[in-house]
Order: sequence, then structure tokens, then C-alpha cells
Amino acid sequence: MNLELIEIPARRGKAVRVRKDQRVKMINTHGTQVVDTWAFNAGDLHEFMSWEHTRPHIGRIMPKTGDVLFTNKRRPILTLLEDSSPGIHDTVIAACDKYRYKFLGVEGYHDNCTDNLFAAMAELGLIPPEVPQPLNMWMNIPVGPDGTIQWLPPVAKPGDHVLLHTEMDVVMAFSACPQDILPINGVACKPVECHLQIL
Amino acid sequence: MNLELIEIPARRGKAVRVRKDQRVKMINTHGTQVVDTWAFNAGDLHEFMSWEHTRPHIGRIMPKTGDVLFTNKRRPILTLLEDSSPGIHDTVIAACDKYRYKFLGVEGYHDNCTDNLFAAMAELGLIPPEVPQPLNMWMNIPVGPDGTIQWLPPVAKPGDHVLLHTEMDVVMAFSACPQDILPINGVACKPVECHLQIL
Repeated sequence: MNLELIEIPARRGKAVRVRKDQRVKMINTHGTQVVDTWAFNAGDLHEFMSWEHTRPHIGRIMPKTGDVLFTNKRRPILTLLEDSSPGIHDTVIAACDKYRYKFLGVEGYHDNCTDNLFAAMAELGLIPPEVPQPLNMWMNIPVGPDGTIQWLPPVAKPGDHVLLHTEMDVVMAFSACPQDILPINGVACKPVECHLQIL
Repeated sequence: MNLELIEIPARRGKAVRVRKDQRVKMINTHGTQVVDTWAFNAGDLHEFMSWEHTRPHIGRIMPKTGDVLFTNKRRPILTLLEDSSPGIHDTVIAACDKYRYKFLGVEGYHDNCTDNLFAAMAELGLIPPEVPQPLNMWMNIPVGPDGTIQWLPPVAKPGDHVLLHTEMDVVMAFSACPQDILPINGVACKPVECHLQIL
């Protein structure tokens, strides 16, 4: 067991290898930060946590405590064991990318979760074969009865955590979302760091 | 202009090449059939219609008339010009696959939309590099205020159509969903054929 606190730096990514039957604690250190989260089968990166494949199993568009999360081969990859936050997470919005910030009027480069995924995996010598829909932990995107979406700040408290159990050997990647134009990382639009523990 | 009526056979797929600025008319011949629908950039199959990338642009989880649909590089690929049906389509459930039918208790092989995608593309000499979240045309998956989903029959009428405008040269693939266990292809659970016209 390793109780080291691993930082996901503000605006940056981090990837870790985690063996089957470990637990990954994700801590929203300041309460305001969205963390794009991916999980890949460590033995075959073409298999990964897939939201469109998980939804039929859990019967919801976002996960709640106790839910088993599935891969694109419909095998369990993670279980959501604990969630001290109100359980508001997003699974319908893509990771931000260089194209997204152009649409938002940014000139030149802007940090983004897609590049963070590739950079974090590269630190482990890996290249993700595709960019799956992430589990956007703590991202608050309410879906209305007519299917409309809103972009709201997280409702987590400082120190809130989620605890995930690994159902296979995985490579997990995280990005502390650098979105500083829309208030999805809090009304201050100030991306900050989060932390991990591998238990 | 080619007014030929192209069949998407019951339980099977069909792929077509369509040039930029053409129109694709999808006809729900019997009104009860879901059609999983994909669009790939004909010049680069790694770029394709992406629902997680489209939702931020249209502000909804499902498309309505007038919406521009975007690729994973956030470029326009299709525009939804007309929809004679009530506009109930799904974008949150994966294409069915061999794994899905095992979970539903099927022993042995069951036709499925993922294999139909590969077979239809293979008829054009193409292999899709991944299986994107499809636009499940006419699939009725209401999302409740708590994020729960239901599996309901289509609300289309026989002969209802949608008309799509192509914003780039595309390869489009369609699968008349072979789901015959859940009532998503009507309460009779009887998959049937649909039709296309390229205008």
C-alpha cells in the first residue's frame, strides 16, 4: 500500500499504472476542480472505460456509488466504491482540446485535457490509440427534460473524494481541466491542482 | 442526383460514399426501426461525427432540425435539415455488439450493429479505425432529471424521414438495429428494413 499523495498539477495531466484489486482515491483538494478521468486495460490500450457501453449497465448517464463501470468490450474495469461529494459528474462532454479553445476565442495555444492525456501517457511510454469519452469527475452539466445542457460550477466541497476499485490491471490518466473561460472549474475560472492516492 | 431507393436490410448494415453538399434522406419505412448512423471523413477515417464533441456546440444531448453536427476535430460534418418525426433520437447508448447480447442471455451469435458497421464498410474496402458513438436515429432513450434512462419504442410514423446535408466528403454507415429482445425497435421486437436516398 502506498499512501503517497500524488499531485495532478493545475492545468496538467498525470497517468498511473494500477494493478487489479487496488483502490484509487481521487481528491478534489479545493472542491472546485474538474478532473477528466480515463482508464485503459493495461494489457490492451484498445480496451478502455467507455461511457456509451457503461450506461446500459448502470441505467443512468452518470455513475453513483456501487456502480460497476464497463469497457468497450463490456467488461468491468472500475467500481465506484465511495463518493463523498453530491455525486455530480459528467459523461456526455468530450475532453477539451485545441479546437475547443479556438471556438471559445482563444488565440494561440491553450492547455487542454486531450493534450494532457497524451502527455501523461507519454511519461509512461504509452500512446492512447484513441481519446475515449472521459469520466469528467465533478463536472456539473445538468441535462434538462428536453435534452438541453448547462455548464455550471462543481458542487463538491474542498477535500471531497471518490474511491475507485480496479477490476483489472489498468493505466489511469487524469487531467486537471485547464478550462478558464467557462465556469466549470468554479466561478473564479481558476484551474487548480488535485490529488490522488493509490491504496 | 440519384433517386434510387437504397435498402438498409433488416438486421444488416449499409455504407455509402457521399460527396460534400449532397443530401442523405433516411426513411423509417415502417416507423418502428432504429438505425445506428455513423459519418466518417472520407479522406481520413480517424475523423468522424462525434457526439461528445457535438453536444457543446448544439447545447443538447440529441440533435434537432437546423443543428450542425461536428467531428472529433470539431469541424462540421453533417447538418440536420429536416426531421418529419417527433425528433426523438439517441446519442448516449453504444452500438450493440456480441458482448451486449451475451448479457441479454443470447447463446451463440446474434446480429449486431457493431459487426454491421464493419461489414458495411468492408463492402467499400474500408475498415473503421474505431467504433464511434453512433447517432441512433429514432431510438427512444429518455433521460430523466436524475440521469436515469429508459428503453422505449420509437415514436416515429411509417415513412418518417430525416434529411442530412453533408458538410464534407463522407463515408456514412447505417445499421438497421437487430435488437429483438428489448422493445427499442417497437413492441413487436421485430427488426425491419429502412431506406436511404442520396440526393
